[in-house]
This record gives sequence, structure tokens and C-alpha cells, in this order.
Amino acid sequence: MEEMFVPFRGIKNDLRGRLMCYKQDWTGGFKAGFRILAPITYIFFASAIPVISFGEQLDRNTEGVLTAVQTLASTALCGIIHSIIGGQPLLILGVAEPTVIMYTFMFNFAKNRPDLGPDLFLAWTGWVCVWTAVLLFLLAVLGACSIINRFTRLAGELFGFLIAVLFMQEAIKGLVDEFHIPERENPKAIEFQPAWRFANGMFALVLSFGLLLTALRSRKARSWRYGSGWLRGFIADYGVPLMVLVWTAVSYIPGRSVPEGIPRRLFSPNPWSPGAYENWTDMLNVPVLYIIGAFIPATMIAVLYYFDHSVASQLAQQQEFNLKKPPSYHYDLLLLGFMVIICGLLGIPPSNGVIPQSPMHTKSLATLKHQLLHNRLVATAKKCMRTNATLGQVYGSMQEAYQQMQSPLIYQEPSAIGLKELKDSTIQRASSTGNIDAVVDETTFDIEKEIDDLLPVEVKEQRLSNLLQAAMVGGCVAAMPFIKKIPTSILWGYFAFMAIESLPGNQFWERILLLFTAPSRRHKVLEESHATFIETVPFKTIAVFTIFQAVYLLVCFGITWVPIAGLLFPLMIMLLVPVRQYILPKFFKAAHLQDLDAAEYEEAPALSFSRTTDREMGRTASFADDGEILDGMITRSRGEIRRICSLKILSSAATPTKEFRSLSDKGYSPRVSELRVELSPRVGGRGPFSPRTGEGRQSNLGKSG
Amino acid sequence: MEEMFVPFRGIKNDLRGRLMCYKQDWTGGFKAGFRILAPITYIFFASAIPVISFGEQLDRNTEGVLTAVQTLASTALCGIIHSIIGGQPLLILGVAEPTVIMYTFMFNFAKNRPDLGPDLFLAWTGWVCVWTAVLLFLLAVLGACSIINRFTRLAGELFGFLIAVLFMQEAIKGLVDEFHIPERENPKAIEFQPAWRFANGMFALVLSFGLLLTALRSRKARSWRYGSGWLRGFIADYGVPLMVLVWTAVSYIPGRSVPEGIPRRLFSPNPWSPGAYENWTDMLNVPVLYIIGAFIPATMIAVLYYFDHSVASQLAQQQEFNLKKPPSYHYDLLLLGFMVIICGLLGIPPSNGVIPQSPMHTKSLATLKHQLLHNRLVATAKKCMRTNATLGQVYGSMQEAYQQMQSPLIYQEPSAIGLKELKDSTIQRASSTGNIDAVVDETTFDIEKEIDDLLPVEVKEQRLSNLLQAAMVGGCVAAMPFIKKIPTSILWGYFAFMAIESLPGNQFWERILLLFTAPSRRHKVLEESHATFIETVPFKTIAVFTIFQAVYLLVCFGITWVPIAGLLFPLMIMLLVPVRQYILPKFFKAAHLQDLDAAEYEEAPALSFSRTTDREMGRTASFADDGEILDGMITRSRGEIRRICSLKILSSAATPTKEFRSLSDKGYSPRVSELRVELSPRVGGRGPFSPRTGEGRQSNLGKSG
Repeated sequence: MEEMFVPFRGIKNDLRGRLMCYKQDWTGGFKAGFRILAPITYIFFASAIPVISFGEQLDRNTEGVLTAVQTLASTALCGIIHSIIGGQPLLILGVAEPTVIMYTFMFNFAKNRPDLGPDLFLAWTGWVCVWTAVLLFLLAVLGACSIINRFTRLAGELFGFLIAVLFMQEAIKGLVDEFHIPERENPKAIEFQPAWRFANGMFALVLSFGLLLTALRSRKARSWRYGSGWLRGFIADYGVPLMVLVWTAVSYIPGRSVPEGIPRRLFSPNPWSPGAYENWTDMLNVPVLYIIGAFIPATMIAVLYYFDHSVASQLAQQQEFNLKKPPSYHYDLLLLGFMVIICGLLGIPPSNGVIPQSPMHTKSLATLKHQLLHNRLVATAKKCMRTNATLGQVYGSMQEAYQQMQSPLIYQEPSAIGLKELKDSTIQRASSTGNIDAVVDETTFDIEKEIDDLLPVEVKEQRLSNLLQAAMVGGCVAAMPFIKKIPTSILWGYFAFMAIESLPGNQFWERILLLFTAPSRRHKVLEESHATFIETVPFKTIAVFTIFQAVYLLVCFGITWVPIAGLLFPLMIMLLVPVRQYILPKFFKAAHLQDLDAAEYEEAPALSFSRTTDREMGRTASFADDGEILDGMITRSRGEIRRICSLKILSSAATPTKEFRSLSDKGYSPRVSELRVELSPRVGGRGPFSPRTGEGRQSNLGKSG
Repeated sequence: MEEMFVPFRGIKNDLRGRLMCYKQDWTGGFKAGFRILAPITYIFFASAIPVISFGEQLDRNTEGVLTAVQTLASTALCGIIHSIIGGQPLLILGVAEPTVIMYTFMFNFAKNRPDLGPDLFLAWTGWVCVWTAVLLFLLAVLGACSIINRFTRLAGELFGFLIAVLFMQEAIKGLVDEFHIPERENPKAIEFQPAWRFANGMFALVLSFGLLLTALRSRKARSWRYGSGWLRGFIADYGVPLMVLVWTAVSYIPGRSVPEGIPRRLFSPNPWSPGAYENWTDMLNVPVLYIIGAFIPATMIAVLYYFDHSVASQLAQQQEFNLKKPPSYHYDLLLLGFMVIICGLLGIPPSNGVIPQSPMHTKSLATLKHQLLHNRLVATAKKCMRTNATLGQVYGSMQEAYQQMQSPLIYQEPSAIGLKELKDSTIQRASSTGNIDAVVDETTFDIEKEIDDLLPVEVKEQRLSNLLQAAMVGGCVAAMPFIKKIPTSILWGYFAFMAIESLPGNQFWERILLLFTAPSRRHKVLEESHATFIETVPFKTIAVFTIFQAVYLLVCFGITWVPIAGLLFPLMIMLLVPVRQYILPKFFKAAHLQDLDAAEYEEAPALSFSRTTDREMGRTASFADDGEILDGMITRSRGEIRRICSLKILSSAATPTKEFRSLSDKGYSPRVSELRVELSPRVGGRGPFSPRTGEGRQSNLGKSG
């Protein structure tokens, strides 16, 4: 790193950046109106269901010391704290699988020690939490998160994919277990007779696949052809929770013709048992030797949390999302330390940033923002068209409405790139149709489609959705009697759903698919996912790169099976940073690597500008110094690049209009403008943020490192 | 009818027409090569599986007197006879549900008569068959099939839909029964304990839905993005049989952990028991009173067969299929009479033309023909492009190859409309791209797509596929030990698959969907199914017409539930003929009716020609007389109409190229040119057949009436 190390700088930068938009974080959330309930419900389910399932797992593994109640309480508590005083409100917190594995290991260790035993287990984990927190404080203060900007798409997507594989494994394991007698149950019970076990397994297959298929379908409801727009929107927004309800109802259809325990349902204890949440009273009873020894598991947990938390945060803030507000890696890690201590004192397992829920959260907020913009612009355009306006006037009124919708941030110029984007596109669009002065009405001009094509990806960045989803998770503790009615098999279906939902948009996944795509149909991938690398990188190079990544994934996956060392699979992902930085460039051309995996610290080869290509490895992403001079050039030239690229796509895919429309029909409409977003890094490696604002996103990261 | 009634004339016309292409029926089949195995396997399964299932039903209902072996034998025997000496080889024969119901009724009648009893039941049905045959002969000789040309899309599609509903009902009933104890079984058996019954039901759900979903997916394999073209083609062609195998294999996974009878599998007796197929020896033992009384059920069966056979034949020859060879309603009915007698003498239930298998057969042959043409033209174009040819030359070579592929029929001019179509399209296409003289190569010119866009719908009309599928059904009798391994639940899944497969292309179904389509998305229906009526008929009229049809459907469906009278639901469909002819025109405008339900006997209003609109009701479809004068005008003006309409579509759907491509990706590629086909009736109500050939399709029908 070329900059001097200054403790606390990262945290200070984070705090400064986020404080500037703190008020807007709340006002923006409330202004979104009732529509914000859609992402909240979506994320609440994505957050609560795995946490409940992990809680059940913990329940079995710790002989009832920790249960779903504790995991829910931790998730809710940490979620609420983080959403209010945390840095990046897009980050979702929860008790994750690694925590469960770690606690299981610690329980197995503690229960056999005469001076600890199950009774002092929680107290001892309290000390582990304290040590973990200390380590996390150190990492935060020393600016360890700066390494996140070395963490490229290669590593991030591999990690995301691995999590998806682990979720899928969980789903399959859960389903297989439905055919077997669970541990800790009476194998003589009627529902564990061979016939009923088999029946239970088959019923579980029906319920889980039913949930999986209908949930996947419902997410695409917006592009359905049937039903009113309101209904389609409702199903797309609330389909997944709805399907959990529907399939839970279905599980009651057999009624009294099956014994009590079929299908198997969630198990939960009494959340308010005496002494719960008063772990600190016991902590002083732990022998000193164990207090010191707690440092050993604490290091592992700290590494894990440091990694998980930062990566979850990064994946929630990927470049494609076109975020406007700054990140907050250092401060969030510091806060995580505090939350770990609180959880330790309360005797509940701590929470950390989770994948895939965090990127799911951002995606759902992008959909929300898109709808808000869409509805407003459609209304404006329709109003304008009623007054016999010309096409140019309609576009003008739309731009005005768009401008009004932009919540100006203090640290940014009021109408930055977003609007420029829209303006460029509209003018280009209008003049390409050739009749900018023609009077348009609703029959000749399909506004809905036009607007969907024009709108850039934007995310409704606010704190309300995170707060409310966390509060709802907390509500689950009280709602346990109802939650108990959900069959476990629906959980497995939901795990599979989450695994599948997290894949689209993951370029690693899309490249794997590309390998299996017939050569004659590869052009379709380009049409659908705007994967420009298909045009610029030879197929063989793509294949080698992807196979390397896939083999690496398999190795990581294999490591998760190793009893305890497996917990440290994140280290394998960490290892990708030097691999990417020093080894891969020896096997791949720099330009190809750039297209396949644009690293923040590497710079794209210049296109047609005279700017000298600066490619030292150590260079961080901070362009704040030369932002000023670049400004005019970038903003002007970006338009050009886009035009060039659009033409290129035009020639290979007939009509962009059609192409965009088909894209927006895929359900994930905001992707429409990813093309624009993805093209921009070629210029300065900076993404679509205005370089004039000296404090652009990510730049504070670089400085603190 | 304006013409004099002449007995035998219909039969003579049919025979003359079909004899002229009889040789080509065989040579064409053999020339298709191994690819013809795809439609054969497809139809074999579609034919055998319901016949086996109906056989099982008959087995239960007749206490084992008739079994699946007899239904298979009848289907094979009649199929072989019909494919060799029958008129229309596209028609598929089989034992159908109404026959099963009728035989069940007759068995229940006979078994309680002391002088008949179960022993003489088959002998008595032999007499019923004799009477039925006599009635069928009469109907055939008197030209009763002429009424088929009064039978419009309205009635045909309603009937097709009703059959789909009945198939679906069968699937649901079958699945529900998997949860109950079947009749004639020992309810004490281990597999009928509540637990195992429930397990069996759940397993059945998994197997049947598994089959249904994977079979539906596999049919669309051609448009998949993954895998080589060969693999995709193979899965699309043989996916359904393959899935039956796969899911049968899956049904063996639980192995010894479940009792013998789970999941339930097909049941079959010994096909070669002594005395089988020698029914005639008993027929003289039937009391005379019963021989005469057999006339009563015979009338019902005759009406049923007359109707089913003709409608199945008509649906297999719908205008969209663009058939080149003449129909043969009268002769086929005569032949059916003979086959009924043979079946009666052998003591097996007779077969008749079946829906949806017959139209499925034609569709699969259209796909075959399309592939044959496609491959040939692609090969030619590629060869031509290697010699640095211009676009014009490439199109020229493709036209030549197309011409060679047209098997000239004796009664038709060698290169009729089909080629003209291609020529027009190619020239139009080539000149629209503006560079007819440019040298093209495979990178700049996507031949595969071009050709898919250009090819008109054509059907590989031949006898080989029908013969071989019937022979394979016969082979099933010997293969019963293997067939017994198929779980019954897979049958139910297959029934549902057939019901769903028969719906696309049914305009009634598409109009129902249209009613539920959001107004803003109706334009998509137009893009996908070329339903021109959406543009020409007001939505309210479409809705009223469709609701009328749906209510009528519900009434018909309700009637099938009435014990015995329900068998005569075809009469309800028959009733649609006068309803359509005399009642509907009072409620709907003639032009709208024409667009929604073009009757052969009504003429379309002329577009811009000076031809006087001739709209007398009684006028039949025979235009042979004025074909000569119309010829030049039609062929020239059709091109114009197409051009006008294409422009219209251009404006509403951005680019036709894209649109066509997306269509051809839908799996049923030949539809691509339905647009052209559907537009032509507007001119002369004659479809795309050359009016110069005095013996155009359908015209012999009109003359004999």
C-alpha cells in the first residue's frame, strides 16, 4: 500500500460518509410508502427461515441449550442495532451456518469437561465472544477491511456460489432426513414406523418441490401475461411468503388420516424460560484457564466474521447496483464487535452479515426503486400526453419528474449522472425514432415499455426495510406457536429456493452455463445478460478461466466437509486475493482478465483517449486526486462509448428495443440498464459515479488502507 | 344441399383421390429415413398408454372378460389395416373411452340376464358390432360425412377441448384413487394399510407430477440453450418416452424398503389364454331376441363412431397444416364398418379415430417435414456460401433444393404454391436487407434462422408412421411383462401431459387465455399466436363469443356425467352445427364470425377486389369452377396482402425477424408461417391450395353432399 497506515482512519471516513446521508436514510424509507413492505416481507422470510432452521440444528446439537428462539433473538437484536446505528443499512445480519458449526464444536468440547459441562457452556461462549470482539475491534481499528478492494468479482462470486451450494446441500440433506428417524426422537413412535416414515418422506418431497417450483414461478409474476397488473405485482412481491402459507395449508389436507407427526413440523421450546438471557451472571464462574483458552476458538470466529461480514457487505454493494451512498466496512466491523459482546453476555449465538440475504436485499430494493420511478414517470407521461404533447415534450416532462424523484444527497451534486443518463437516453431514443416533434398518444406510444427501457438501475437505499425486517424476526419469537405449524420440508424447499435465487446475476454461474451452451446459441447469452466479455474474450480463455474457478470451488466445497478445519474455508477464498493478483496474470492476458474480472486496483486499457495506462499493481482505487481533470472527458466520452457499444449490439442482436423489452420481462427489470453500468468501468475503472465528487464511493476505502 | 344425392359418390371420390397418391404415401415415408422414428415413437406412446389404461378400466368393469390385451390387440389390428388400406393415413385409431363406457354398460346389462351372462357377453357384443357396422356402411354410402364441412372451428375446437378436459379428469381421478383401496383387491393386504396407502398416494403424486413436468419440458428441448443440437433434437423427439422410462426407474428406487404393491403398477393377464380371439364360434348361441335387441346399443355406437371418426380425421387435417393430399371421410367410415365387424368376430372391443392422438400425429409429422427441409436447405446454403456466393445466389440454391424436396403428386402441378411462397419470401427478404448482391458467409448471415423463418408449414404425409406405430402397439401385447413394470401413477401423469399438449394451437383455449390477459399485454398474444382476430374483432365480441363457447363446453362436460345418456355428448357437439349456422349469425356480425370461426361454407368478405361477395348460406366449399379465373388474381394479390399485413405487424411488434425467431424458439417451429396460411382464406375462403388444380382439397366433399 502506498499510503501511510493511520489507525481509526477507515472508521472515521465511514462515519463521516454515512452521517451525511443518515437523515435521508430515514426520510427516504418513509417516503417510499406502503410499497416498501414488499422487500421487507421478502427479506424477512429469507432471513427468518434459515435462522429458524439453524436454530433447530443447534437445538439438536447442543441438547437443547440453544434453540431457534435464541437464534431468532440474536438475529432480531443485531439486526435492529445495525439498522439504526450501523453503517451500511443494506447489510442483513443473522445467525449463519458457520456460527452453528462453531457452537456445536464448542459444545462438544465443553460438555465433556468436568469443570465446564453443559451448565457453564454458555458462560464459556460468553468469554469466547468477548475475545472475538477484541479481535474484531483490532481489525476494524487497523483498517483490515481495506483488503476488501483487492477482493475481486472472482472471489466474491465464488463465495456467493459456494454459499448457494451449501444451501442446496442443506436442502437435500434435510429432504433425505425426512425419510429417516430423527435423532433424539422415540423410534418406537407410530410416525417412525417404516410405512409412515416412507409416507412422511414422500409427503416432504411433494411439499418441498411444491414450494420451490411455485415460489420460483411467483417471483416472475410481473412478466406473466394474465391477471391485472396489481395482482401480478402483488404475487411477485409477496408470492414467496404466500407460498409458504399455501403449502403449510396443504400440509394440513390429510388431516386425521395421518398420525400427529406427519409431516414433521418445526419444534420449538418455551422462549421465556427462567434464566434465559442472563448469561453474564454465570460468566465469572468459568475457570480462568478456560477464559484464556477461549481465545483459540475466538480467533477462528473473528477471522470468519471479519470475512463473512465484509464480503456480505461487498456483495450487497456490487457495482451493478449503482449505489449512491458510501460503504462502511471499517465502522461496521467495529459495531459487529460490540454486538458480539452483547450476544455473549445474553448467552445467545452472535449474528453477522449473511449471504445471500444481503445481496437479495439490495436486489429487492432495486426493484422497489424501479417501480417507484416507473409509476411516477408513467403517470407524468400520461398526464402530459393528454394535453396533446409531442414526443419531445413527453420526454421532457419525464425528465423533470425523474429529477424531482432524485433525493439530493449533501455530499453530491443534486442532479448527477443518473439524470444525465436518462437525458442522454431519452434524446437518443427520441431522435432515433425520428419524430421528436410528433404528437403522441397512448395508442401509438407504449410508455410503460419506454420507461422500463430508459430507467437506470437504482437502489432505494434506506434503513427502514432493514429495521422492520429485523423487528419482524423478533416478532417470530412471540409467534413461535404459529411458526411451529410450518412443516420442516417447506424449510428445505425454501433453502433450495434461496440457493437458486442467488445464482442469476452471478457471472461465474453464467459462465458455467455458457460452457454448456451450444456454440450457435451463445449469442443469446449476450442478449440476455449483457456479458460483454463474450465479445471481447476468446471462448477458450473464458472456458479455462471458468474451469479454474469451478475447480477452486470444488476444493473449497470439499474443505467444508473436513470436520473442524472445514470451518475455515473462507481462508481458501482469502487465498484467491494473491492468486488473482500474482498468479492469474501469468496465465491470462491482462485485457482478458480485466473483462472477466475487473479488479478495482487494476485499470482498464484506455480506449481511444491519450491517457497513459497506469497499471502498477499496488495502485488502489482512489482517483480522488485526478477526478477533477477526468471529469469532462469521462462524462462526455461515456456517452460515446455507450453509443458505440449499442451499435455493436444492434448489429448482433437485431433490435435493442426488443431485446430490452424481453429483458424487462424476465422479472428482474432493473437489469435493463446494466449494460450502461457495465460499460463505464472501461474508462476509469470507477463505475458510474460522478468523479467530480471527490468523495466517490470506495475512495475512502483506498485511503485508509 | 344444392347437388343431387348420388350413393357411393363420396366413397368413389375419396378412393380416386387417395389412390392417386397411394404410391407416394409409401415412398415418401421410406425416403424420410430414420428421422421418421421420432413421430412414430411419440405417437406410439400417445396411442398405447391410454389404450392400456382403458384396458385396465375395462378389466375392472367387466370382471376380467376384456383386458388391456384385447384393447391393445384391437388398436394394433385396426391401426395396421387402416394404415395400409385406409384413406387418410394421418388418422390414428384406437380403443377410446366411449367404447369402454359402452362395453361396461353392455356388460352390466348382460351379466344379469340368465340367458346371456358373462359367458355369452362377448358373443352378444359381436352382434352389436355387426349391427353397428351395418349402420356405418349405410352412413358411408349415403355420404353422411358431407356434413363434416359444416363442422366449423367452433365445434372442432370445442370437441378437442372437451377431450382434453376428460383426459385431465381421468388423470385427477386416477391420482385420487391412488390414495384409496382399489376394487377387487384384498383390503387386508399390507400395501392397503392406511400408512402404506398414504405413502402410495404421495409416491404417486411425485411420480405423476415428475413425469408431467419433465415431459412438458423435454418437448421444448429444441429451444434449450444448452447441449449440442443433436442432443436437443433427441430429447425433443424422444423425451416423453424417455421420461416414462426414467420415472419408471425412479419408482424402483425405494426397492425393498416398501412392500411389493407400492407404487401400484399395471396389471395384466395372460394374452394367449385358450379360446381368446375366437368369439365367432359363440355368436350363434346368442338367443335371437338379443341378436335383434343388439340393434339398440348399435345405433348409439354407430352415431358415436361416425362422429368421433370423422372429427378426429378433420382435426388431423386442419387448414393450418397446409396438407397437400385429399381427405377421405366417406371411404374411411366404410372401412371402419369392416373393422368393427372383424373386432366383433374376434371378441375384442373395436377401435375408432381418436383425439388428441390424430392431431398430435399430424403436428409431429409437420415438425419432421420442417426438419427435413431445414437440414437440406441449410446444407445447400452452406455449400453455396463456401463458393463465395452472393445473397441472391444463396437464396437461389435454396429454392432449387426446396423444389427437389417437393414430391410431385400426380393430380397436382409439380411446383405449386409452396415453392412460390418460398420464392416470394426469399426475394422479399433479400431485397429488404438491401444487399442481394453482397457476398455472404456464415458469420454475417445466420442461415439456420433465415430458413426457419422462410419455411411454410408442411406435413410429411405418408403411411409408414401410422403402420409402424400400430405394429408397435401390437408388440405391446407380447411385451406385457415389461409394460407391467410401469407404475399406474405414471399413466395419470401421461394423461395430464396429453391433455396439456393438446391445448396449444386450439384457438378456443387461446381466446380463454386472452380473457384473462391484462389489457396492456394483449398485444403479446398477437405476436405469439398470429391470432389476427385480435386486431379485427372488438374485444367485447371476442369475450362474448368465448364465454358462449365456454358455457357450451361446461354443458357438454356436465352431460358426460349423466350415466348413460352422457355417452351421447357428441350429439351436443353436433347440435353446434345448426347453432353456428342459424343462431350465431343473429348475435354476431358476419365479418366477426368469419374472423373468429371461418366456416368453409361462408365466404370471407372481399378485401379490395371487385369480386362480388357471395354469401348464401347453402354454398359449399367447391370453387373448382371459378378456380381458373381466380388463379392469377389470388396468387398475385396474396403476396400483396402478406406485405400489407407484415407492415402492420412491423409497426406493432418492432421487428418481424426477431418476432419470428422468438417464435421458432418456442419449439413448435412450423408455426412460423401460419401467418401466411391464415391470411389466405380472406381471399377465397380456400386456404393456401392452388385453385388451378380442379381437384383441390375438400372439393370432393362438397360435390358428394
